[in-house]
Amino acid sequence: MASPENNRRIEIYDTTLRDGTQGVGVSLTLTDKLAITQLLDEMGVDFVEGGYPLSNPKDVAYFEEVQKLELKHTRVCAFGMTRRKGIDPADDQGMQALVNSGAPIITIVGKTWDLHVDEVLRISREENLAMIRDSVAFCRSADSVQEVFYDAEHFFDGYRANPEYARQTLQAAIDGGATRLVLCDTNGGSMTDWVTQVMAELKEKLAVDADTSAESLPSLAIHCHNDAGLAVANSQAAVAAGAVQVQGTINGIGERCGNVDLLTVIANLKLKLGYDCLIDGAVARLGELSDAVYEKAAVEPNDGQPYVGDNAFAHKGGMHVHAVQRIAHSYEHVEPESVGNQRRILVSELSGRSNIAATLGQKFGDAVTPEVQTNLLTKVQDLEHRGYQFEHAPASLELLMYEAIGQRPSFWVRDHYRCVILGVPEEPTQTEAIVKLTVGDEVEHRVAEGDGPVNALDAALRKALRAHYPQIDELTLTDYAVRVVNPTAQSAAKVRATAEFEARGVDGNLRRFSTIGVDENIVDASWQALSDAIQYYLIEVGAEK
Amino acid sequence: MASPENNRRIEIYDTTLRDGTQGVGVSLTLTDKLAITQLLDEMGVDFVEGGYPLSNPKDVAYFEEVQKLELKHTRVCAFGMTRRKGIDPADDQGMQALVNSGAPIITIVGKTWDLHVDEVLRISREENLAMIRDSVAFCRSADSVQEVFYDAEHFFDGYRANPEYARQTLQAAIDGGATRLVLCDTNGGSMTDWVTQVMAELKEKLAVDADTSAESLPSLAIHCHNDAGLAVANSQAAVAAGAVQVQGTINGIGERCGNVDLLTVIANLKLKLGYDCLIDGAVARLGELSDAVYEKAAVEPNDGQPYVGDNAFAHKGGMHVHAVQRIAHSYEHVEPESVGNQRRILVSELSGRSNIAATLGQKFGDAVTPEVQTNLLTKVQDLEHRGYQFEHAPASLELLMYEAIGQRPSFWVRDHYRCVILGVPEEPTQTEAIVKLTVGDEVEHRVAEGDGPVNALDAALRKALRAHYPQIDELTLTDYAVRVVNPTAQSAAKVRATAEFEARGVDGNLRRFSTIGVDENIVDASWQALSDAIQYYLIEVGAEK
Repeated sequence: MASPENNRRIEIYDTTLRDGTQGVGVSLTLTDKLAITQLLDEMGVDFVEGGYPLSNPKDVAYFEEVQKLELKHTRVCAFGMTRRKGIDPADDQGMQALVNSGAPIITIVGKTWDLHVDEVLRISREENLAMIRDSVAFCRSADSVQEVFYDAEHFFDGYRANPEYARQTLQAAIDGGATRLVLCDTNGGSMTDWVTQVMAELKEKLAVDADTSAESLPSLAIHCHNDAGLAVANSQAAVAAGAVQVQGTINGIGERCGNVDLLTVIANLKLKLGYDCLIDGAVARLGELSDAVYEKAAVEPNDGQPYVGDNAFAHKGGMHVHAVQRIAHSYEHVEPESVGNQRRILVSELSGRSNIAATLGQKFGDAVTPEVQTNLLTKVQDLEHRGYQFEHAPASLELLMYEAIGQRPSFWVRDHYRCVILGVPEEPTQTEAIVKLTVGDEVEHRVAEGDGPVNALDAALRKALRAHYPQIDELTLTDYAVRVVNPTAQSAAKVRATAEFEARGVDGNLRRFSTIGVDENIVDASWQALSDAIQYYLIEVGAEK
Repeated sequence: MASPENNRRIEIYDTTLRDGTQGVGVSLTLTDKLAITQLLDEMGVDFVEGGYPLSNPKDVAYFEEVQKLELKHTRVCAFGMTRRKGIDPADDQGMQALVNSGAPIITIVGKTWDLHVDEVLRISREENLAMIRDSVAFCRSADSVQEVFYDAEHFFDGYRANPEYARQTLQAAIDGGATRLVLCDTNGGSMTDWVTQVMAELKEKLAVDADTSAESLPSLAIHCHNDAGLAVANSQAAVAAGAVQVQGTINGIGERCGNVDLLTVIANLKLKLGYDCLIDGAVARLGELSDAVYEKAAVEPNDGQPYVGDNAFAHKGGMHVHAVQRIAHSYEHVEPESVGNQRRILVSELSGRSNIAATLGQKFGDAVTPEVQTNLLTKVQDLEHRGYQFEHAPASLELLMYEAIGQRPSFWVRDHYRCVILGVPEEPTQTEAIVKLTVGDEVEHRVAEGDGPVNALDAALRKALRAHYPQIDELTLTDYAVRVVNPTAQSAAKVRATAEFEARGVDGNLRRFSTIGVDENIVDASWQALSDAIQYYLIEVGAEK
């Protein structure tokens, strides 16, 4: 176990905006990139790599726009390759783009692995060393540049193949004036013991090569990928062996299996290993940072993500829930709130009755008798067998509870709904929804248009109900997701629709709640989620039926 | 780096069927559980934990049915808690269920952490030791039982709080006759150095406590959870420190952040660290095993999963793709095929033209001129901006290519489609789809029913086309998924539909291909994917229009 007070500050270098966007399905607009930069600065992230200024117009614009932000903690880094072979750095377009980006830090990536020098670049090994040295020196000499970091691509593979040459590439960067040597596990396949061993050898031998003391050499940084499931461990091993900087991305987004997830590393360094990083209070905002990046990158969140995932503090097994109720830390490695997350108690077919009691007891009190608990559990088990998941739809679960205690009101009786979608080439798809309901003594037969079936049904339902329950105008649909429950069946497979709504309760506070529907027909699954939500809300605000 | 030939066999203990089903959204039928057991046996997994025979009827049935399988390698384990306090094990229902399960291995879980003994169980520490000793001894004495494994819950937390008592609990299990001591990081928050340190101390001190040599003591096993992102590293650190058995789940499914993913550990142990496990050839089937468990558990696959994920060998950045084309292992830590996976070259807005050439060059040859590459890249960038993702839909990308070179045939002209969904309470939802197309000189106006809009449109489209293109009967829709592209917008947000089809090509071989559609209307997004698929297939089989 590392000392609880290592008392050393570790620099955090975020490359979500550059390496992160190499991830499948990841795309960030210029506005997104600037907003993420702002948020990272607020947390005290030391370095934000904004992109590669030559690669596309979006990255060029980023470096212009980011200069207008008033960043407090963060220094922005521009990323680029060493100069092309056989030319002066001053004549190289990429080099020019880097120094013209206005970024105070330039990160230059170069080749470590002799295989890449010989077979991919097809240049002499000496020329590769010169390219590294020249490129670092050229950037270092620009007025706008404060520091140059040298990013040693494939370092751990290159060092295995030819340790002598790998060290020479670092020496070239040192000679050029680099202030950080970033050891990259580019292919992500290194084992942790290898990272530790290489770090130890390097620190010793670089000092000998340079004929100087280790203290006057540039500090080492680590950049890991997760192809062997060891990115977090390898980053922490490098820190333990003396690295001063960890590079990674928020949520670990990135190419193939991703970069190291900085959120996990930060939480481990601060809460478990006693290192210092970011600013005070930042760890409690990790959940918020995670959400923001998922949303902007349009990447589906990983519910099982350490510390910040939706399930990271979710308790399902009856035995565990019982104990969590008694002593939280008996089944939680850190307090959920300390990393900006929260505990969830789940009801499912695996639950004991204690989960039912824990989930609903506070609201329904004595009505949650053992008999009601058993009935409700049976009902939940039956519905989950048919594809429902109440873990993500507590409002639908509460409606089942109202039903179980005989207190579910009927706000309307449906005759039918009908949804018509018309697709004509070159025209926007047209959708109409018709609902026919009996509300009180009146028959409401209404039609509405929408951008899709869910939107149209929502609109028609509101038209039918508004005169009777004007409160529904407070209710807003904020999220909607569909999932095929059995991915092996054909298009007749069941669809699970979950919907999230937002509304002000009677106390005036904004509340969110989620409902669920399951059917072979996506439209009917959506109808269930919609009508559950409206009924739930009307109960919540005490609407008279 | 560990020696490339550690030459030691590591036992693999799978608890997908028990601990895995604690994961949010994970549910396995009896048939699923038996099929997974069979598959694990084929790979040579040493132990399969089938469930907790007292907890529910499904688990009881499992232990009956599994005895009918002719397992070659696997021994089945039944999991249960120590006896209740103050009674004889023979009078304990749980103990009886365990020994009556017929399982050759019983795994008994007991308390290590004094906090749990004092505050959760609320029994004396001596009684807890007696419960462990008695329970292990009782199971060990049953005729059907070959071995008893003792599962030390919260071992790493308990050892930190009170190392002396934690050791006593293990000693109680040794005294009862346990043959494996399973050290559980139940809360999943341990750092790797701590696991290494505890393992080293234990091996030494248990031998002293027992007044015997370490060799005659039961061997140690490791059971990790991933709450700090270190489950793989911790499991491997325990193996390096002498553990003979790794417990975990397939794909790492499990409560909160999951159990350790056995697939990653197995690949690392076998391909990187030189240990022996499973049977020869099993590693090349890891991808298959992963797919089977995701499918049966109805859990969405993790595309970024090490070794077996869809993206684990996906190359997107232009520079990388260029190098991968030249020398595969320059950007891949292992060969994709060695773990039952495959390389993917992706085309996206980040791609250089080299990705376009790599993806389409083989099929379209000289038609992929630099000008065509540029046009296609612009088109792809534009569509991806609107929510398309061609990485998962290469067939739709190929149709764009046919368009770019002016060779996309028009098999029909659509007048319109119309889809009508009727929802009447207590009746199955009715769906009708109408399509009106001009095919050749004929107008085809057809209607069909289906279980949902996609199914009905598929049926109507086939009715309209069958007389003209009888080949389409060979084409089957095998998978269909929908995703809301912008999760922050309301129900009018865009929907991305991807569909996978299977058909025999002209060469008689079965082929799979995927298409994509994006629209605000889910029905139109699905229509795009469906009609792309039929057009693509007709081109592939050389249908005459």
